[in-house]
Amino acid sequence: MKPASYFAKLASAQQRAQSLLCLGLDPEPSKLPRPFRKRDAADVWHFCREIIDLTSDLVCAYKPNWAFYEALGIEGLRALSKILDRIPRNIPIIADAKRGDIGNTASCYARSLFEFWGVDAATVNPFLGIDTLEPFLAYKEKGVYALCLTSNPGSADFQTGGRLYIKIARKLAEHDFSKNLGLVVGATQAARIRQVRRIAPSLPFLLPGVGSQGGDAQLAVRYAWAEREGSVVVNASRSILYAATGKDFAKAARHAAESMRLQLHNAIPSDAKSFARRAEV
Amino acid sequence: MKPASYFAKLASAQQRAQSLLCLGLDPEPSKLPRPFRKRDAADVWHFCREIIDLTSDLVCAYKPNWAFYEALGIEGLRALSKILDRIPRNIPIIADAKRGDIGNTASCYARSLFEFWGVDAATVNPFLGIDTLEPFLAYKEKGVYALCLTSNPGSADFQTGGRLYIKIARKLAEHDFSKNLGLVVGATQAARIRQVRRIAPSLPFLLPGVGSQGGDAQLAVRYAWAEREGSVVVNASRSILYAATGKDFAKAARHAAESMRLQLHNAIPSDAKSFARRAEV
Repeated sequence: MKPASYFAKLASAQQRAQSLLCLGLDPEPSKLPRPFRKRDAADVWHFCREIIDLTSDLVCAYKPNWAFYEALGIEGLRALSKILDRIPRNIPIIADAKRGDIGNTASCYARSLFEFWGVDAATVNPFLGIDTLEPFLAYKEKGVYALCLTSNPGSADFQTGGRLYIKIARKLAEHDFSKNLGLVVGATQAARIRQVRRIAPSLPFLLPGVGSQGGDAQLAVRYAWAEREGSVVVNASRSILYAATGKDFAKAARHAAESMRLQLHNAIPSDAKSFARRAEV
Repeated sequence: MKPASYFAKLASAQQRAQSLLCLGLDPEPSKLPRPFRKRDAADVWHFCREIIDLTSDLVCAYKPNWAFYEALGIEGLRALSKILDRIPRNIPIIADAKRGDIGNTASCYARSLFEFWGVDAATVNPFLGIDTLEPFLAYKEKGVYALCLTSNPGSADFQTGGRLYIKIARKLAEHDFSKNLGLVVGATQAARIRQVRRIAPSLPFLLPGVGSQGGDAQLAVRYAWAEREGSVVVNASRSILYAATGKDFAKAARHAAESMRLQLHNAIPSDAKSFARRAEV
């Protein structure tokens, strides 16, 4: 049987969980709850396992950021491997690795993420040019989210200054031959989400920056929504992972995830409730 | 004893080897010489070991690109670890990983490269903004090369179109408080090297794209040269690594490296032979 493509898998997961919420699995050793005293790769694995086990019915995707595992060296990547295995098979995994390199080097990164790690989707950095995204897009069943506008203050330096994010959105909207391309648009800049949505009406958006980074989750969904499952996925990490610092951390994470799930769901425009309606069947 | 900073270490290595040549350790399994039939991580290690052993007196730095090791999964990273250990301690290692992420995530990448892997310098992607470079620059003894202009055709999409590379060069030239910042400027675009050098007269340049990619090595050095050791390092990879496909691959690599070393050295402007003169002492 041909495996479902990433965006189909995402849409199913969104329907099943009635959720637009992607949970970022970004384990910062210094922030792990108190029961994890060693703050090493083993602790990272045990922490993420409990988080996954208590949130998997509430999310439509998990998004581990590679940096947190690489910071722990090869042992960290071994922990990542176990964490990916723990995620239920019907929930897509987005590798947040923001890779970007030229030619054959980009192919190697794509091979690493899509073949060795076997993830369903990945974030990529488009700064090096569209030719550098092709090796990722060549995996037709995989999703590729190109950074368009990030959620940090420094996005003013080279993305919004000079309106580069507009240019990226425009070029990539024109370029989506393979229908497996999406954009990362930081939820911290709501007005710009609307602008990018107008330029790229059919590209799926991955919206990070709600929760701890202060992005308005509801505005983000309202502006990004494109009238179909898979068109919007919103990521939160710290506000859920570190909702409590004691033994009850996983329950607190579940509570925070449930609350964010509802917030996001309520923001789906009322004239576009196909998502919710179909889910009620 | 305080360890030498990256740029001091680079300058010493350039003096010692009388060389501006950085050798990219980019082992592509499909291109490995015939003696390596399995084309697995063990072959990658043995291949790179022989290359290092036969070139270490000719180069001023090695630049492994992380993608080639990540493509082989965790075993590939184990091979990388052995390869880094094989490089003589007085030759600096530039991690070509082109990482770029925000805030604490960038800190994790910096920690991975500079602490876990222990490299002397790293390439970073500045697209996310100057705040995302700070966690790398905070390692004062390490070198940080920010991508300014890459050597691929797609650099026209977002770097030269809109003159973004000019803006990056200008902002980073202003920002070099810590004196451990450099720029990656593709050697395939010689006229632009001169332009970027005018904008950023004191930033060190890492110039990839000579050899297989067709950049003019001599023009690159002439335009990038800034009258001191460490100001220019030129990378070649494939033209050296794969100079021969048979058992004599390492000798052929040595020969190709020696030839490139001479080419680069001869291109140092004649009114700026301090490099060569001091070396004769």
